[in-house]
Amino acid sequence: MPDFFENHRHLLERAVAALKTREFWTPFPEVPSGKIYGETARVDGEAAFEALIGQPFDLPGHPDESRVGAETSPWGRDVAITYPAASVDTLVSASQAAGADWAAATPEARVGVCLEALKRLNAQSFLIGHATMHTTGQAFAMAFQAGGPHAQDRGLEAVAAAWDEMTRTALNAVWEKPQGKMDPIVMEKRWEILPRGVSVMIGCNTFPTWNGYPGLFASLATGNTVIIKPHPRAILPLALTVRVLREVLAEAGLPRDAVLLAADRPGAEITKDLIARPEVAIIDYTGSSVFGDYIRANAGQALVFTEETGVNSITITGAPDFKGMCSNIAFSLSLYSGQMCTSPQNIYVPKDGIDTDQGHKSFDEVAQGIAGAIDKLLGDDERAAGVCGTIVNPATLERIAKARAAGRVIRDSAETGHGQSATPLLIAVQPGEGALHHDECFGPISFFVPCDDARSAIDQAADIAAAKGAITAALYATDEALVDHAARAFARAGVNLSVNLTGNIYVNQSAAFSDFHVTGANPSGNASLTDTAFVASRFRRVMIRRLKVA
Amino acid sequence: MPDFFENHRHLLERAVAALKTREFWTPFPEVPSGKIYGETARVDGEAAFEALIGQPFDLPGHPDESRVGAETSPWGRDVAITYPAASVDTLVSASQAAGADWAAATPEARVGVCLEALKRLNAQSFLIGHATMHTTGQAFAMAFQAGGPHAQDRGLEAVAAAWDEMTRTALNAVWEKPQGKMDPIVMEKRWEILPRGVSVMIGCNTFPTWNGYPGLFASLATGNTVIIKPHPRAILPLALTVRVLREVLAEAGLPRDAVLLAADRPGAEITKDLIARPEVAIIDYTGSSVFGDYIRANAGQALVFTEETGVNSITITGAPDFKGMCSNIAFSLSLYSGQMCTSPQNIYVPKDGIDTDQGHKSFDEVAQGIAGAIDKLLGDDERAAGVCGTIVNPATLERIAKARAAGRVIRDSAETGHGQSATPLLIAVQPGEGALHHDECFGPISFFVPCDDARSAIDQAADIAAAKGAITAALYATDEALVDHAARAFARAGVNLSVNLTGNIYVNQSAAFSDFHVTGANPSGNASLTDTAFVASRFRRVMIRRLKVA
Repeated sequence: MPDFFENHRHLLERAVAALKTREFWTPFPEVPSGKIYGETARVDGEAAFEALIGQPFDLPGHPDESRVGAETSPWGRDVAITYPAASVDTLVSASQAAGADWAAATPEARVGVCLEALKRLNAQSFLIGHATMHTTGQAFAMAFQAGGPHAQDRGLEAVAAAWDEMTRTALNAVWEKPQGKMDPIVMEKRWEILPRGVSVMIGCNTFPTWNGYPGLFASLATGNTVIIKPHPRAILPLALTVRVLREVLAEAGLPRDAVLLAADRPGAEITKDLIARPEVAIIDYTGSSVFGDYIRANAGQALVFTEETGVNSITITGAPDFKGMCSNIAFSLSLYSGQMCTSPQNIYVPKDGIDTDQGHKSFDEVAQGIAGAIDKLLGDDERAAGVCGTIVNPATLERIAKARAAGRVIRDSAETGHGQSATPLLIAVQPGEGALHHDECFGPISFFVPCDDARSAIDQAADIAAAKGAITAALYATDEALVDHAARAFARAGVNLSVNLTGNIYVNQSAAFSDFHVTGANPSGNASLTDTAFVASRFRRVMIRRLKVA
Repeated sequence: MPDFFENHRHLLERAVAALKTREFWTPFPEVPSGKIYGETARVDGEAAFEALIGQPFDLPGHPDESRVGAETSPWGRDVAITYPAASVDTLVSASQAAGADWAAATPEARVGVCLEALKRLNAQSFLIGHATMHTTGQAFAMAFQAGGPHAQDRGLEAVAAAWDEMTRTALNAVWEKPQGKMDPIVMEKRWEILPRGVSVMIGCNTFPTWNGYPGLFASLATGNTVIIKPHPRAILPLALTVRVLREVLAEAGLPRDAVLLAADRPGAEITKDLIARPEVAIIDYTGSSVFGDYIRANAGQALVFTEETGVNSITITGAPDFKGMCSNIAFSLSLYSGQMCTSPQNIYVPKDGIDTDQGHKSFDEVAQGIAGAIDKLLGDDERAAGVCGTIVNPATLERIAKARAAGRVIRDSAETGHGQSATPLLIAVQPGEGALHHDECFGPISFFVPCDDARSAIDQAADIAAAKGAITAALYATDEALVDHAARAFARAGVNLSVNLTGNIYVNQSAAFSDFHVTGANPSGNASLTDTAFVASRFRRVMIRRLKVA
């Protein structure tokens, strides 16, 4: 039997250390390079992807009562893979049956399986990149990074946090209580880690692995079995994950059904049936707050961790580097056509304009500066497609059409010519006008909101974050007093704030081991990736104690 | 301004270390001795208590719209103290108003206040002992220990766990991401601890401080303000706690209203109104599962931590020391007349009896052995009152009367002659007979349940724990295979198990810094004192990040 834990002990210790220092660290290189992943990795990954197309996906030993699969690539190519499917009864029973042996495995054995699986997933990053590209509609470079190494980072982070917490207190102790002049009472105590049971991870369409791995690996490491319910349009990246995990489980002599795939059909999703099962003890969910509310109302005693709807903002009160700011924001708005949970939506600017290194800029000049930077960034169709990717959900295209009427169009959305696409739509609204920008308007849609002054701009951005949720906020300012004001306002609203970003770092980016993704302190979710609260209640400790025999 | 944190830093570090090793440790001696607490401590404590009797209780600066107070001592003496009371509106507003400054205080400042308050409470242990005695009906020795040092231990434990978690990850980091041949991206990141808001602690009648301090101090240390809603029959121990905390807050230049007392009248409790308030973000509750269900259904988005109903058990499959076992169980059943959340209720014994160091004992001989040990323990009325204390709730006396009819009386309950009292009632039931023992039957009532064999006895005890909840389980066994079987069965049921206890250590006892009280893995509650899950989600982290200026 391979000793996965010992093989990866150093990796684990390094990850635990990184969680504490919050400094830059990753074991999974984000550059899709043959020098790093092996000379043939690129070609092999593409070939492995092509070999899956149009075929039944093989998951040895997995419940396989029927076949489902209706993925279509937003890039316009066929997928036509079918996946094994089974009833909720079958899945829950199989998960529970695997539960006893999985729970009885040592934390070392479970963590070892998780680490080995993450290493193997990393080696398959090119394949996963293609799978992610053709299910989420991301451009390949992003699909590789976000679907591969960045997701693996977040998975490893969850394993490290779980390990650190499981080993935080002694599992054996001798408790010796003095009794004055009499002999002390001496007890031996032993604790074991008790998982909660069956865990369900509900994947999203846009970031099936990045948003899915934290809950998956946190639950697995702490001894829960996991049923993965992928979005019916983004099954493949998670099916590949299930395949790797089940292979590693089998090699470790542990039950493969500790990880199951609950693939289903669009329009015939089994999510509600899964949630309704009393055996389900943990639910991890990424998606809209409407379904988030449904889950909370119907989850019974299950723990629920979510990432949900929000209204992210940029507040521009001044610009120490106007050109750098416009370029930076242009990229943030264009990247994956605003379909990231971290994409900015509302841009608050004082109505009388701002001071910059290029002198005073009016409200319109700020908006035009950003529009111009987007035009420049996306000037070439090939490059535009490489940044924007495609639009994964047709509802987003409808939303763009509707948003055009919400105010004055600063920059219209356009196609890139590659797949089902849409570049950023920029709209200037009047404060009293319409209300579209008062809620999440998912996709490449941004609203410029004129404000009375800089403080009012900050306060409006913070207020909507507190009320509607937000995962990111950005501020541009030349006045440190305004930065302090914003720091307090956004902290109270529970949003992480990025100040004066320029160059190759963007407000959309959330780095594992350093940035806690989602604070848990506003309506955009309670799953903070990865803080202790995300792992600590996934298991319990239970003790046996007895008098020590002298 | 006194530096409470620095003054108590060593205490804090020692407490954090104890949490990890789970070895015996306490800074608060449990012996009510003048040698430890000062030569005049006993007399001073009693005098301080007497001075409160019949008087308005003074809480300087506390909202004081009316006066309430209807405590009566189960020992038969007058209390007649009135407390300041205010509407839920007033209390929530005052708590919120204090919240900004309290949240803005550093973790060091908040933890310093908590530690100083605990030290002062410890110095008042004699006073608190009397206050506890005359509200809970415990005998003085127990009231001193459980209401004083043991409760302070649990409070300190919560502060230590909160501190350890707040400082677990860096609050400042420089994040330097390599960019190949280009200059790295270097960001400065800063995090702050963000509390959830207003926390409500709902105290119980029997252990107002012991069960109340963990939630109170965990919420305070993490920056939440706390409204303490005491049981209307046990206000004084918590009013004394509020007084000390508010004194320390004032000395630290922090808002006294960070801790408020929500005293109310029996029959006109304001608990439901408090729970209904959307501002309430955390609820800590000790009491029946019926009201626990109410809280869960009506708490909105508030975090809820509970200790609830359960059926604790002793399973007797053999006895390596029959006499020692009977004495030990006799004390466990008699202590505070079974009114502890850790008191055993059901005693499962093979119907054909057990093997012991005194040879085979029949089912009845086991029951009679325990009954005899109780008679011996309680033979003297003074001593009986010292062990049993009094019955705090008249409903318990009615329950005893009803339980007499549930089976064959092995030992009848009797009075001690001191206060409103009742010694243990022992009933032998038939497995199919009645159902009283299938639920919690709070008070000095125990049921002997005959089982087919030893394994069946263990399984029945574990099954009822899993189904109805349990905080403690005890096993007596001479066969190590049975101990192993029980270890697995009770672990799966989420109950801590004590094996073959004899001498001066009892299944009822749960030692801070070593025993996690309540596992969270069965219906008896989710508040495990004090694991990380109990503190980690009481606060969040929020970040500000910016490019580092070279």
